[in-house]
Amino acid sequence: MLRRSALCLLLVAAACLRQAKADEGMWTLDNFPSAKVEKLYGFRPSQQWLDRARLSSVRLAQGCSAAFVSPKGLVQTNHHCAEQCIEQLSTADKDFIQSGFYAKEEKDEVKCPDFELNQLTEIGDVTARVRDALAGKEGAAFTEAKRAVKARIAKECSGGDDALRCDVVELYNGGVYNLYKYRRYQDVRLVFAPEQAIAFFGGDPDNFEFPRYDYDVSYLRAYQDGKPLDTSANYFAYAKEDAKPGDLTFTVGNPASTQRLDTVAELEYERDVSLPRSLFRMSELRGQLTEFQTKGPEQKRIATGKLFGIENALKARKGQFEALVDPALIAAKAKAEAELRAKVDADPALKAEAGGAWDVIRDALKRWKPKSEHYAYTEGRGAFATSLFSHALALVRYPVEKALPDEKRLPEFTEANFPGVRQSLLADEPFYPELEKLTLTFSLTKLREVLGADDPFVRKVLGKRSPSELANELIDGSKLGDAAVRKALLEGGRAAIDASTDPMIALARLVDPDFRAARKDHEDNISAPIEAAHTSIARARFKVYGTSVYPDATFTMRISFGSVKGYWQDGRFIEPITRIGGLYERATGAPPYKLPESWIVAKPALDMNQPMNFVTTNDIIGGNSGSPMIDKEGAIVGLIFDGNIQSLGGDFGYDGAVNRAVAVSAGALREGLAKVYRADRIVAELSR
Amino acid sequence: MLRRSALCLLLVAAACLRQAKADEGMWTLDNFPSAKVEKLYGFRPSQQWLDRARLSSVRLAQGCSAAFVSPKGLVQTNHHCAEQCIEQLSTADKDFIQSGFYAKEEKDEVKCPDFELNQLTEIGDVTARVRDALAGKEGAAFTEAKRAVKARIAKECSGGDDALRCDVVELYNGGVYNLYKYRRYQDVRLVFAPEQAIAFFGGDPDNFEFPRYDYDVSYLRAYQDGKPLDTSANYFAYAKEDAKPGDLTFTVGNPASTQRLDTVAELEYERDVSLPRSLFRMSELRGQLTEFQTKGPEQKRIATGKLFGIENALKARKGQFEALVDPALIAAKAKAEAELRAKVDADPALKAEAGGAWDVIRDALKRWKPKSEHYAYTEGRGAFATSLFSHALALVRYPVEKALPDEKRLPEFTEANFPGVRQSLLADEPFYPELEKLTLTFSLTKLREVLGADDPFVRKVLGKRSPSELANELIDGSKLGDAAVRKALLEGGRAAIDASTDPMIALARLVDPDFRAARKDHEDNISAPIEAAHTSIARARFKVYGTSVYPDATFTMRISFGSVKGYWQDGRFIEPITRIGGLYERATGAPPYKLPESWIVAKPALDMNQPMNFVTTNDIIGGNSGSPMIDKEGAIVGLIFDGNIQSLGGDFGYDGAVNRAVAVSAGALREGLAKVYRADRIVAELSR
Repeated sequence: MLRRSALCLLLVAAACLRQAKADEGMWTLDNFPSAKVEKLYGFRPSQQWLDRARLSSVRLAQGCSAAFVSPKGLVQTNHHCAEQCIEQLSTADKDFIQSGFYAKEEKDEVKCPDFELNQLTEIGDVTARVRDALAGKEGAAFTEAKRAVKARIAKECSGGDDALRCDVVELYNGGVYNLYKYRRYQDVRLVFAPEQAIAFFGGDPDNFEFPRYDYDVSYLRAYQDGKPLDTSANYFAYAKEDAKPGDLTFTVGNPASTQRLDTVAELEYERDVSLPRSLFRMSELRGQLTEFQTKGPEQKRIATGKLFGIENALKARKGQFEALVDPALIAAKAKAEAELRAKVDADPALKAEAGGAWDVIRDALKRWKPKSEHYAYTEGRGAFATSLFSHALALVRYPVEKALPDEKRLPEFTEANFPGVRQSLLADEPFYPELEKLTLTFSLTKLREVLGADDPFVRKVLGKRSPSELANELIDGSKLGDAAVRKALLEGGRAAIDASTDPMIALARLVDPDFRAARKDHEDNISAPIEAAHTSIARARFKVYGTSVYPDATFTMRISFGSVKGYWQDGRFIEPITRIGGLYERATGAPPYKLPESWIVAKPALDMNQPMNFVTTNDIIGGNSGSPMIDKEGAIVGLIFDGNIQSLGGDFGYDGAVNRAVAVSAGALREGLAKVYRADRIVAELSR
Repeated sequence: MLRRSALCLLLVAAACLRQAKADEGMWTLDNFPSAKVEKLYGFRPSQQWLDRARLSSVRLAQGCSAAFVSPKGLVQTNHHCAEQCIEQLSTADKDFIQSGFYAKEEKDEVKCPDFELNQLTEIGDVTARVRDALAGKEGAAFTEAKRAVKARIAKECSGGDDALRCDVVELYNGGVYNLYKYRRYQDVRLVFAPEQAIAFFGGDPDNFEFPRYDYDVSYLRAYQDGKPLDTSANYFAYAKEDAKPGDLTFTVGNPASTQRLDTVAELEYERDVSLPRSLFRMSELRGQLTEFQTKGPEQKRIATGKLFGIENALKARKGQFEALVDPALIAAKAKAEAELRAKVDADPALKAEAGGAWDVIRDALKRWKPKSEHYAYTEGRGAFATSLFSHALALVRYPVEKALPDEKRLPEFTEANFPGVRQSLLADEPFYPELEKLTLTFSLTKLREVLGADDPFVRKVLGKRSPSELANELIDGSKLGDAAVRKALLEGGRAAIDASTDPMIALARLVDPDFRAARKDHEDNISAPIEAAHTSIARARFKVYGTSVYPDATFTMRISFGSVKGYWQDGRFIEPITRIGGLYERATGAPPYKLPESWIVAKPALDMNQPMNFVTTNDIIGGNSGSPMIDKEGAIVGLIFDGNIQSLGGDFGYDGAVNRAVAVSAGALREGLAKVYRADRIVAELSR
């Protein structure tokens, strides 16, 4: 599943790098290759067409994509993108993950505790201003100057209006700085969700696979001033017919991250250090949560979302790891890098600016490796895996940061960024001590395991207690699970924090200096030189190869184009479209292939030949989950929810021969709403 | 912990390869560099000295080393080597893992259900005979010829006497074939074990670390004809004094496996494919078992041994992985390989024999990678992680294999080898359905995850059932947990197997053809060419570099030499000896730093200055657990139980600057027996 937190990024059998690249690219909305699309597909999107696509699309700030699909603020996204909300609205008695959710009337729509939608209203170029601010700076001066200029630009842009969100976005690894201005909506309500059993039919075994038969959809609604948002000016209508093989398709969404422009040293670090570490850790936590779920139905319910997130990320990252250990991939990257370096070295001016940049990055990573675990278990948050600690640290830091001028603050506490943090702090979410103890004990155990029992920070945290003793003390003793308590501490300022005897607050106070020191070291001595080196490389690349290229993904809005198309796998052609009938053939009666009762009952009414899921060549990656798939009329033909297994190395490159985006067809969405769920209100709204 | 199943092999920061190698080597007992030892340490072990060391040492066939330490068959090994026995003798009411075990009188000594000791009585050279049999053969012919010649040699050697065990041992990757003749003892009884809390003080966090404070010892006794074995001719007495820094030490044991002679292609395969896969899998299972243990005291008890085994192997293999992703290690190996290849290519005769061997191995691994998961989940046994399935498959195969001539059988069913399998089949061990369901569900889930839900073998096994449904059916339905049922099926021959309706037997019958096909493909198309290529390389290496080298470890007897010596770590000197006083300082009261009551009570009586653990430069690896550490008089000064963290890459090379073997001092062993456990009978026996 392509949500952002899952970091599900695309795979390439390295040989693929040499193959079809026609549809490659996650393009910014202000640099779209319309002429290329016209040449390939005979349709040239106008700027007006692109602007409408931009304003009709919306980002879920927590890590997904979505779209307005009615004039009244109805938002279409994936079930797995709304899952956090659905789970938070559920209780032991009413499990909407299992039963699904449908607000029969508008008044039944329920607010998601911690959701934010962003609508991109403007893109501006601030490259020169950022560059001027950074010129000649290194290390701490670089970090501080960058922080300051970004905060200034963002503050000027939003003018202190929390309904605006202004992000300085770094594109092309620092080659370009853009200002993205969003309208921010924090009143987001749940309208409809199917049962997870059909949304995620096939579960982990079928995740990132195709053929596929998932109904991975949820409908939300944006509200403003307590009323449905008026989106009559910009929304996508549903297409009357489903897409057919060969049809041109666009996706608009927010791919989270790619590393296609990374240097070989960075890819090797990813392969040898970062990915293995996260895979080891997630594998173990997966095991714990799997077994935790066997303890009872309530344990099963409360751990479902967390386990899904981990399994999804695990499968995605394993795909990336597989891609990176294919020697052909690194060899191809090394070849491309050597070519660029040779061209840079051949030009004295370029050489002076960028000739040493690759070695700067390699050296920085070498220095970083021995420090990286300490960072991971301090500011990297690897040691305290509970939302209570995240809350505590934000509460402890807030008064300190608020006392500073905006441009000196840690970026998450600037006026432009704090509304997101505040929403999380105040969100009235359920809190499950048993599950929090599990994850906290796990992370404290890892802390001791990785840094060693004799590490000073470990001793400072654990003292004579075992990880589980400390976790129990903290979770049992803290009152931060209560949103009202957090609100009081947030509003109480420094005095309230200093006076607090909450053990989680005490822990955050205790470790904050270590966290800050680790962060500063990383920012000044690793990030700063790497970022500066990347900027040099990016500028050199523009000079050598021109600017008609797309930047790596950064969880900002991108549009990709492609077409409905099957592919070859292990000598067999995979048809691009599955049918509802295939869903019933695949069902076994045992999870994760067990159909919910609603679909069993509805079977006679359904058109078995109705397209269910389909694949296209659109270039997407984690974060694109929930992206609308539209045709050239700008009408919805599908809803992106996944990439195929071959796409999991797409982090590092795109191969049009086999990389595929996976979508639910618009027809299937309608068929399900009308005949399975009898959600007539939504069907009517979609038809307007 | 250095037991074999743990595959805890040694680490090298790659730079180390260039450093001190004086004490390097796991030498065979018939090719020991006595002259070198004399030069370095002024003592020249005679052949008589070596023979006595060989006959006083003993192998635990399940994966450890040990030694006779009294004239009456008393065997000293590690607690973690006897753990399987201790756990099998325990019940919910009497948990000897927790409480320890002490047979006050000889009659209280209890037979371990499934232990076998091997005493190496003779080493012969059969290289010429094996080579003649293999000459000119490839693929299936190579596999069959090798199987046949090994079976013939072993059968001639043992003459059908089950009390003899004859193994054809492949040394130097096929450069030399030796016949190792052992006396086999299957009546092994538990005499003494301390509480695991002190045997494994510090638990996983301190495992492979130093300074250390473990009392990792158990005493067993070999019996013959119902009486203690007479070992008066060959046993090690305890030294009167502990070893001091600089003292010469020898270890005699059975290091399981090293890959120091592997080609670069093999090391890369290990780094990119084998190790990550096993680390992902073990991490997840660790998580499940950890959480399983929280379900209650009985769940905690029955999963302790399994969890220890996994955590131990995880830590060891992570060390190996860390070593392999250090680019300096592979670079050094590539350099050495290139040098040897250049010398081979410069000699026409050598080039003709071995010039292509490295590419043969690289190509075979490339062919193997896409098939390897199918193998891993069939004959590799990755799919059915329950002892019941292992039993079922052995029972299904036995009558088929028995009907074949000895030399045509699968090696585990030859007359020479079957006694070990039979012992396991007939062992009256406890059986825990809840735990078996966990591991079987886990492995079936992995089967589907790794091969995919649509894989024909997966469909054949699972049908429409989920992994947990099938696991529950099999474990609940099978009677193979009962040793008497297994005995009846073993003795009932083919008719009994064919008639059996036991679901586990049915499963074994169902999958055996797939298993055999995968095994044959691997043996004929991957193992055969790789082994032949290795033999060519080994012979070339002898010709180029001579024969005064040691072979890679193969879980056969080796002797290493070294001395008591500290080392530098992160700029700090680590003293080589810890004291009993340090144990009490390190204790926190919380597991795994919680002392058992016996040691708390005994504290006033103990000498706080008594050496507890110490390190030496001896070159050891997994399988060496339980090895006696002896001085030049052949007296016991310690008991090997671990290597330090730096030694975990020793699989690939040895670095005398930091690689260390970790032992319990003989004085601490005596101190504990006398003053903590008042095991006067053992103390008296050790003093004879």
